[in-house]
Amino acid sequence: MNILFIMYDQLRFDYLSCAGHPHLHTPNFDRVAAMGVRFTNAYVQSPICGGSRMCFYTGRYASSHGAQWNGFPLRVGEMTMGDHLRNSGMDCWLIGKTHMKADAAGMARLGLSPDSVIGARQAECGFDTWIRDDGLWAYGPDGFYDEKRSPYNEYLRSQGYQSENPWADFANAGVGGDEIASGWIFRNADKPANIAEEHSETPWLTSKTIEFIETRDKATPWMAHVSYIKPHWPYIVPAPYHNMYDARHVPPAKRHAMEQEDPHPVFGAYQGNKIAQAFQKDEVRQKVIPAYMGLIKQCDDQLGRLLTYLENSGRLEDTMIVLTSDHGDYLGDHWLGEKDLFHDASAKIPMIIYDPRPAADKARGTTCDALVESIDLAATFVEAAGGKVPAHIIEGQSLIPWLHGNRPDWRSFAISEYDYSATPQAVKLGLEPRDARLFMVFDGRFKLMHAEGGFRPMLFDLKTDPDEFIDLAKSDGHQAEIERLYGMLAQWGRRMSQRVTKSDEDIKAMRGLSLRRGILPFLADGTEVDAELLSKYRGTVKGKTVTRPDEG
Amino acid sequence: MNILFIMYDQLRFDYLSCAGHPHLHTPNFDRVAAMGVRFTNAYVQSPICGGSRMCFYTGRYASSHGAQWNGFPLRVGEMTMGDHLRNSGMDCWLIGKTHMKADAAGMARLGLSPDSVIGARQAECGFDTWIRDDGLWAYGPDGFYDEKRSPYNEYLRSQGYQSENPWADFANAGVGGDEIASGWIFRNADKPANIAEEHSETPWLTSKTIEFIETRDKATPWMAHVSYIKPHWPYIVPAPYHNMYDARHVPPAKRHAMEQEDPHPVFGAYQGNKIAQAFQKDEVRQKVIPAYMGLIKQCDDQLGRLLTYLENSGRLEDTMIVLTSDHGDYLGDHWLGEKDLFHDASAKIPMIIYDPRPAADKARGTTCDALVESIDLAATFVEAAGGKVPAHIIEGQSLIPWLHGNRPDWRSFAISEYDYSATPQAVKLGLEPRDARLFMVFDGRFKLMHAEGGFRPMLFDLKTDPDEFIDLAKSDGHQAEIERLYGMLAQWGRRMSQRVTKSDEDIKAMRGLSLRRGILPFLADGTEVDAELLSKYRGTVKGKTVTRPDEG
Repeated sequence: MNILFIMYDQLRFDYLSCAGHPHLHTPNFDRVAAMGVRFTNAYVQSPICGGSRMCFYTGRYASSHGAQWNGFPLRVGEMTMGDHLRNSGMDCWLIGKTHMKADAAGMARLGLSPDSVIGARQAECGFDTWIRDDGLWAYGPDGFYDEKRSPYNEYLRSQGYQSENPWADFANAGVGGDEIASGWIFRNADKPANIAEEHSETPWLTSKTIEFIETRDKATPWMAHVSYIKPHWPYIVPAPYHNMYDARHVPPAKRHAMEQEDPHPVFGAYQGNKIAQAFQKDEVRQKVIPAYMGLIKQCDDQLGRLLTYLENSGRLEDTMIVLTSDHGDYLGDHWLGEKDLFHDASAKIPMIIYDPRPAADKARGTTCDALVESIDLAATFVEAAGGKVPAHIIEGQSLIPWLHGNRPDWRSFAISEYDYSATPQAVKLGLEPRDARLFMVFDGRFKLMHAEGGFRPMLFDLKTDPDEFIDLAKSDGHQAEIERLYGMLAQWGRRMSQRVTKSDEDIKAMRGLSLRRGILPFLADGTEVDAELLSKYRGTVKGKTVTRPDEG
Repeated sequence: MNILFIMYDQLRFDYLSCAGHPHLHTPNFDRVAAMGVRFTNAYVQSPICGGSRMCFYTGRYASSHGAQWNGFPLRVGEMTMGDHLRNSGMDCWLIGKTHMKADAAGMARLGLSPDSVIGARQAECGFDTWIRDDGLWAYGPDGFYDEKRSPYNEYLRSQGYQSENPWADFANAGVGGDEIASGWIFRNADKPANIAEEHSETPWLTSKTIEFIETRDKATPWMAHVSYIKPHWPYIVPAPYHNMYDARHVPPAKRHAMEQEDPHPVFGAYQGNKIAQAFQKDEVRQKVIPAYMGLIKQCDDQLGRLLTYLENSGRLEDTMIVLTSDHGDYLGDHWLGEKDLFHDASAKIPMIIYDPRPAADKARGTTCDALVESIDLAATFVEAAGGKVPAHIIEGQSLIPWLHGNRPDWRSFAISEYDYSATPQAVKLGLEPRDARLFMVFDGRFKLMHAEGGFRPMLFDLKTDPDEFIDLAKSDGHQAEIERLYGMLAQWGRRMSQRVTKSDEDIKAMRGLSLRRGILPFLADGTEVDAELLSKYRGTVKGKTVTRPDEG
């Protein structure tokens, strides 16, 4: 079996027709959901591209791998799904984005050349690279945001798009008179991107994926991480997707005046940032959200193209398909834009998995409301590859029992984290980097946010308040729930996350080993152990093979 | 300035005359205490050789580095004081024991040869090796406990001690008729070891230390970790130390019948193990403790030899001296032998530091009762070497302010941990490896032990019960203290321990960086930012340097 691990960037869980979107029709996502299981309570371990992805790829919590935010390098030697899958005989390839930053200092300390196979895998998050393109070829006074080479820009130039940065000038700019209408400016979001649709990012990466599958030797199973940049901003999409939706299709913002009354200081700081202020304007939502929907519709069409290819090539019978996202997008809900905090719009993700094997037949087309964490995929893939999940390293749990219609023992709470130490909000709140950290604990009903730095928590009851408007921690009477969730957080804080060099099986095999290697520190007179065993420890009879120099 | 970081193994905090021992006179330890500061509340982060040492060497908690027990490899790439000190221009050498096990699988995964300089440092805990000898050349049916070469055995053979394992047959066996009287058997503890005193382990390592200092180029500062195996078991010592002390000098066991009444299950399991049962016998204590005291007396004499050498060579003026231990030894206190749990006999250590610099003059000869953790030494050494403590990696705090008579902001609780997953006690309690873990939280007065696996905690009030006999968690009325200490443990559990690739300064420097690299996702119409700045982002005028293929 192969695995297509398809990730969209910033795709909200509820912007799919199978998840109930009233206007956005995504028949190809829905088709995969009908072929497999749709997990309706899946949460990322950090609602930010880089941090979230490192959790997906390592199968470990953000506090466990340490690469908690965009541009925080993943420490050298940290194991990823690539290491684990190759140990199980499965190749592990990257097609698209990881947002990984290599630990150049650590690699230099260990003498690892980025040009070696080992070094290249260390530098690209454990993947072998079919194509790497992080999809943000932004350029400012200090140069490119991404310092690597840009395969997509190279492709655009090869297709005749002439400029220094065709990603910015064509793929992410609108057609707008004499000047390029930058996709960075929301005013331009309803313009068609200045590019032929077939040359835009989503079709390009889909073509690369098909090219990859074409080259596969059928004898070697593979996992391919197909990682699209869209529907992530810049919010601009080529024709015909730019005008498929309009203000009539924009759901009203999920926001309530009470959220602005005495908000939690961190929530308040986020409500006051520039992106939030932009999304608080209805004209922004009405321009941006149709473009966001168009980008998703294009993703769906390209997924259809890929499914058709798989069907025609026979790969649909032996390929697991995973559709997910690295986090959501507030889009004005809760008076916010972007992601970062833990409301469902941000921290909850789509998670649809098709397992082609007959054992999965009885669960096809079902939904599952178990508390799923993004780190579960690494464990799922190791099991799918026929390996044993290294539970001393991977902190997630395999989803395969759910895919096969079983009910495994399961976690009782999900954790997410957010390190905002590098953001303007930390500056505004006057926080040192180590205090600018947030934790979510969600037990399926109550969602607690703990903020380091001396702040009170936030608490929502999603049963009585599914829209997460009422912060129960503002008022009295919920101390018991708060303490219960803090107890879960404390339990999680004591988890065994770094004993990565010894498995539980290794440890069980160690029991008694030191005795058999001569460590006997407990003998009062030697009668405590079997005499014959003891005779093997006591050295040799004096005067026979043992001689002191003064007796020699 | 140089640093002599001298560690004894299993030396109790109170078996020194400067710490109040009634019969054991240790004038050389006392001399260093009079020249410097003696810390009276110093705790190891794990009361077991390997786990504790990895905390000392990394400056990080056991749960942070993951090498929580003897023989658990320190993961490849984990930084140690060697890495930090070399970054500050100080060499970092090992003379003696580390109990480090290399992460051979991790090194192979990263292609590191143990024969390279980088590989050798990875394999020896970041030190350059002057001499490595872990000091336990035990041998049993499955072979040697330590699979490396044994410099001490090689030395003994060169001195004419003829046997396969002279460490066992001479240095750690008594003179006893026709058979060798194994030092493993407590009955033999009052016999003189079958070796000339000058050839025994402590004088040998002292000679190696002096040889090392002799070879030093005075232009390059160095830190030398002089790491003695003694007074660790086997409890046997050469003449004349074997009969300096006898039963009259053995303090009564600190134990109380109430400790055996309904003990905490983990405490109870330890009371029932073989070493505890041996030390519960007065005849064992009366044989073993005089030998233990003799071993310490020999350490003190050899320390005197080293101090004389330093004085005569002028090195006492430019060398910081640290005297400490990796953990204590119950010696029958609390009905226990060995270490492992968190009573002061086990988890508290001697910590004496002499700083030769004039700034330390006003604190000389004083004691300090601040809550010191063993991980503080790594930070102390980096500061002593003139470096900046990398607080995102090293979790300890520099002790230099205390050494200079200042009162820094300081921690309000100390943490220690113990992973007993590989021990018979875990088997007896029926625990899976991840549940066989203990945590100590000590706030200077109350000491809480938390045990994973569903057990109740233990609680001691060292103010009203300095002997730690009364487990307050057995009775009602202490819930508030228990919750307060659990709150400290929870706070510690949320600490930032793995974000080792970005310092706080790096993060502050990142703030705003993405904007200057072209990331502008918040612009409604572009008026939100300075027009001139914006002009640098907006691409080039259409038709000038930017051309679509269909316009070409």
